[in-house]
Amino acid sequence: MTASVFDHPFLSGLLGDPETAALFSAQADLAAMLRIEVALADVQAACGLVPKASAETIAGLAETFVPDMHMLAVATARDGVVIPELVRQWRAALGEAGKDLHFGATSQDVIDTSLMLRLQSLCQLLTGRLERLEANLGQLNQKFGAARLMGHTRMQAAIEISVADRIVAWQAPLAELQGRLAHWQSAGLPLQFGGAAGTLDKLGDQGAIVRSQLAQRLGLADRPQWHAQRAIIADVGNTLSLVSGSLGKIGQDLALMAQSGTAIIGGGGASSAMPHKRNPVKAEILVTLARFNAVQVAGLHQSLVHEQERSGAAWTLEWLLLPQMAIAAGAATRIALDLLASIEALGQAD
Amino acid sequence: MTASVFDHPFLSGLLGDPETAALFSAQADLAAMLRIEVALADVQAACGLVPKASAETIAGLAETFVPDMHMLAVATARDGVVIPELVRQWRAALGEAGKDLHFGATSQDVIDTSLMLRLQSLCQLLTGRLERLEANLGQLNQKFGAARLMGHTRMQAAIEISVADRIVAWQAPLAELQGRLAHWQSAGLPLQFGGAAGTLDKLGDQGAIVRSQLAQRLGLADRPQWHAQRAIIADVGNTLSLVSGSLGKIGQDLALMAQSGTAIIGGGGASSAMPHKRNPVKAEILVTLARFNAVQVAGLHQSLVHEQERSGAAWTLEWLLLPQMAIAAGAATRIALDLLASIEALGQAD
Amino acid sequence: MTASVFDHPFLSGLLGDPETAALFSAQADLAAMLRIEVALADVQAACGLVPKASAETIAGLAETFVPDMHMLAVATARDGVVIPELVRQWRAALGEAGKDLHFGATSQDVIDTSLMLRLQSLCQLLTGRLERLEANLGQLNQKFGAARLMGHTRMQAAIEISVADRIVAWQAPLAELQGRLAHWQSAGLPLQFGGAAGTLDKLGDQGAIVRSQLAQRLGLADRPQWHAQRAIIADVGNTLSLVSGSLGKIGQDLALMAQSGTAIIGGGGASSAMPHKRNPVKAEILVTLARFNAVQVAGLHQSLVHEQERSGAAWTLEWLLLPQMAIAAGAATRIALDLLASIEALGQAD
Amino acid sequence: MTASVFDHPFLSGLLGDPETAALFSAQADLAAMLRIEVALADVQAACGLVPKASAETIAGLAETFVPDMHMLAVATARDGVVIPELVRQWRAALGEAGKDLHFGATSQDVIDTSLMLRLQSLCQLLTGRLERLEANLGQLNQKFGAARLMGHTRMQAAIEISVADRIVAWQAPLAELQGRLAHWQSAGLPLQFGGAAGTLDKLGDQGAIVRSQLAQRLGLADRPQWHAQRAIIADVGNTLSLVSGSLGKIGQDLALMAQSGTAIIGGGGASSAMPHKRNPVKAEILVTLARFNAVQVAGLHQSLVHEQERSGAAWTLEWLLLPQMAIAAGAATRIALDLLASIEALGQAD
Repeated sequence: MTASVFDHPFLSGLLGDPETAALFSAQADLAAMLRIEVALADVQAACGLVPKASAETIAGLAETFVPDMHMLAVATARDGVVIPELVRQWRAALGEAGKDLHFGATSQDVIDTSLMLRLQSLCQLLTGRLERLEANLGQLNQKFGAARLMGHTRMQAAIEISVADRIVAWQAPLAELQGRLAHWQSAGLPLQFGGAAGTLDKLGDQGAIVRSQLAQRLGLADRPQWHAQRAIIADVGNTLSLVSGSLGKIGQDLALMAQSGTAIIGGGGASSAMPHKRNPVKAEILVTLARFNAVQVAGLHQSLVHEQERSGAAWTLEWLLLPQMAIAAGAATRIALDLLASIEALGQAD
Repeated sequence: MTASVFDHPFLSGLLGDPETAALFSAQADLAAMLRIEVALADVQAACGLVPKASAETIAGLAETFVPDMHMLAVATARDGVVIPELVRQWRAALGEAGKDLHFGATSQDVIDTSLMLRLQSLCQLLTGRLERLEANLGQLNQKFGAARLMGHTRMQAAIEISVADRIVAWQAPLAELQGRLAHWQSAGLPLQFGGAAGTLDKLGDQGAIVRSQLAQRLGLADRPQWHAQRAIIADVGNTLSLVSGSLGKIGQDLALMAQSGTAIIGGGGASSAMPHKRNPVKAEILVTLARFNAVQVAGLHQSLVHEQERSGAAWTLEWLLLPQMAIAAGAATRIALDLLASIEALGQAD
Repeated sequence: MTASVFDHPFLSGLLGDPETAALFSAQADLAAMLRIEVALADVQAACGLVPKASAETIAGLAETFVPDMHMLAVATARDGVVIPELVRQWRAALGEAGKDLHFGATSQDVIDTSLMLRLQSLCQLLTGRLERLEANLGQLNQKFGAARLMGHTRMQAAIEISVADRIVAWQAPLAELQGRLAHWQSAGLPLQFGGAAGTLDKLGDQGAIVRSQLAQRLGLADRPQWHAQRAIIADVGNTLSLVSGSLGKIGQDLALMAQSGTAIIGGGGASSAMPHKRNPVKAEILVTLARFNAVQVAGLHQSLVHEQERSGAAWTLEWLLLPQMAIAAGAATRIALDLLASIEALGQAD
Repeated sequence: MTASVFDHPFLSGLLGDPETAALFSAQADLAAMLRIEVALADVQAACGLVPKASAETIAGLAETFVPDMHMLAVATARDGVVIPELVRQWRAALGEAGKDLHFGATSQDVIDTSLMLRLQSLCQLLTGRLERLEANLGQLNQKFGAARLMGHTRMQAAIEISVADRIVAWQAPLAELQGRLAHWQSAGLPLQFGGAAGTLDKLGDQGAIVRSQLAQRLGLADRPQWHAQRAIIADVGNTLSLVSGSLGKIGQDLALMAQSGTAIIGGGGASSAMPHKRNPVKAEILVTLARFNAVQVAGLHQSLVHEQERSGAAWTLEWLLLPQMAIAAGAATRIALDLLASIEALGQAD
């Protein structure tokens, strides 16, 4: 099955990013979900809400549990979420301790928190890549920055600038975005924990303390449940699109520079009809990914209209959009690194 | 790898549609591509442009050729399209006849035409499903049409209508859409055939006749190349979104009716925190898919700004959007069929 | 007040189109609404549903009635639609005959039908402009078609083509779009007439005949009410975006040609900092308008999820989007006509 | 001319917001532009770049200058920006001192900075409104918070919560958004100042000091020019859509509560066909405005692909989108204040 170019047998070579995609695999999701349940049981044991023995048994599950994927798919088709069946499978594997798993939690707590944990890893990955991109631009600046370049405004030659002037305009957004991502990476992304209808009704007066300790355990920010408040999702999408958009601007510039001969890009793509051509494929793809994410961000904003305590319609829409936005942003950083590495000359030394 | 819910090990149970997805697999694409090359060689042999023996050898390739997928992925990363490497692999398998393969064609001819062939199958599939949906609504009308229903306008009770009134409003768009899809299915989708820069420069004065016969052979409409004229892609996307949008309206109505008790939907989803609940999951998912396709259609329209003779940036963006729009529309029909089958009562008989 | 560039004191010079905008003025809307009520009363008088004398009095209203705009604004703020207050004002002006005005109709009937009447005029206007654009391209082809032009694919020089090859690719979509618009112009756009909840409940067994005659009187297609079936709105938006998108492609090409010196465009824009520059402003603006409409079309598709018998939320969203899409498409045709007229040379004669 | 509902003679009663719209009027723009030129001349006089006498003459212009709007429109049509003609008019009014106006600046410096100054006012206005909304929700909480409410997840009754639980979920995003807006209001929005191609080439070694003092004078953040780095625009759009989206969620909830009888909303809208109805018009309009802004945000992200030193196409697109997003967000706050004030009861006391 190859609905998405990011998973496609041959198109993923062009557009994919295995490292980012791995964060959004079913395996990574299931692992994060179990990590959450383990941490929850542990915290609840410390608060006396579940027996310590149960928490220990639950902690052992990570080593041994193998989900029945077919049953998960069948049940998700019915339930709209994987958790009821997954909890059933976990409980079946746990025996007696099973009743103490997932205590006071709801599907959305686990699914949203799993997403946050993986977004945390994504932020780390993207920060590292943006740092390298900034450094690589710095190296290009050292090599070619002094070269002259005709500045272009409104698609027309304007006045002469230097290659350095343009490179600085490429670097600045990448530096700023690292700051945002680093903030989220270090406990800026929120735990989701609210129980059935957001009131942690089963935890009595221990709701706040359990939530706070769970957040700390998972390295996430402690805040009241946000089941129906989806600004964080829109904000993440906004930032992912800024990543791909900032790189798309570089790609557009380099494609135009390659066309006019002020950038020499090595290793371009072949044509089936014109063997002599060398196409600035990677530069173009950065534009593609930028426009893709720009489109998707609108869907995350539609999901802000999230009715009542939990909207199946609005919430599920996020699942169709955010993972591919993340992979598109990741792929853009990967491709930009390749593209910058292939630049042989910038500007007109004349 | 599971970037897309449509391919996801467990979420595809909820949101996927294997029958539609199969049309957008790499296998289906490669098969359609080869079918095009075979037809092209055959037509060109009839015109005396390539030896008949070559055309026969090429025709045999479909039986035996197994692509080296890894090499396809590597080369697509470099070339931006799969065709140069695929043609190379085909030619290596063909020996002498290889030089007569892909004669006068360009990558875009093969890739766009492969898409059209598979969209043709999609139209057939969707037409059949919409027909069944219309029939199922007819059966619901027979059973419950006479029941009274409070008409609602602007989210408020208005005047009493019958269940039949609402069902008719659900049916009408489905009938209209079948007509559009049927038109495309029967030779309404265009062949793409223009060569390197759209001028069929290698075919001399036989360009038009080869194109016309190739179109006939493939069951597609003959028209001049449309490498940089992408209205057909936007139109297909528009129609796919009308399919999911029309079903999304039904889903939204049924979710509201389930909430107010004027629809009884069997087999709803379970909750991990509230075992007593039965959620109208399929009704909600129809809304999700409608909003998803509504978002995507904007991207296809962005790709109308397709610069010069061929834009790598704009063209590739279509690949990220259209297959998933098709699967979303397909999934919406599949889910709507399930949903209608699970309806136990509509309206208030009182 | 100048929320929109299309109405803006100075930006409308660049981006506006007074002729198209006039179709979406409050005056044009109110005039069309009254025309509908007059036709409705007339048809209903012929069917014996209202006294002929009333119909005659109502017909006279168009000469004399001056709406109280302030009251319309105040009441629209409360009612969400202008019709209740407008009908009140009309009735107050009509005296005795007032009770026979708007008989059996609902707000949406009048508002949607008024839109259809004005879209009909829009189709006429756009068809004429597209015809002129096609002719102007034909003239450019006569002048410069034989000149050589380097074909560009993927932002790189490919093989040589002629200016004619590129002009043909610009013309083809404009011809196709004229056909669509002409279909809508000649009775292809549907009357909206359903009454309070879509059932024409007040007209008894004369609902169908009144609707059919009203459609004929107004030059619209007769079809059952489509209060909650909004495909026609999405289709109109799709076509408007194809108009601006097809012209946006021409604009993008011309901006690139101006940059590389293969198009000489007269009368370009000045820069406040660089008096020597001549910018291809109109070419760029065509790209802007194309991308604007591509964005908006997504909103019309969101409105396909139109719940129950009438959704205030989804319906109102159309009002925020469609008029500006129409003006953007109109402005694109106006600007394209100017741009083509200013072309002094195309291609490289060398 | 009434392309936009926000300027429309009667629809603006429903959807407009005069206070916000005033910030985006041509008058406000021109006033801000002149304020920038005055501050620039003053700073440059202090640095010895222009005579003090010139700066004083320029400062006097604000009292007396009346633009020739017709000429501005004509020139903007040609130049793509208003500044060249506006500078010409200003200079004509200034006589000798005219040559010292706009020294070293480019059109984009003035246009972008004018936008930032007005966005600063917008942030102030929105912050105040959000504060009042939060307070009003607090009052509703005091009155009705203890009332029971059936919690709904996935459009189905879940478990009982209190009205307070839901109100808290409405309040939280409004508090968070105030923080963001307040940051921008207090010198968080950036000055734009780069000259013809971003290098402040005419200011020699005084570029940085002039920019820094100009920023301070205008209450904006000092940062290097961002002519082609548009993240701030996307971020503002993202936040505006969060404002309307957060209020749209409240509107959707209240419309559903009104339908089920758990919210009593006074002063609802009338129907032309059903005089007995009272429609939750304002609740619906909040959903409309949320979905509108969600659509528009995609366009701002498309504009991140801003080629070379200045893209006429990408930059102009922002002008079509951002002002209406601002007014939509403003209108949403205005309407939400009205809506909350009209709530007569929440929840089921039973």
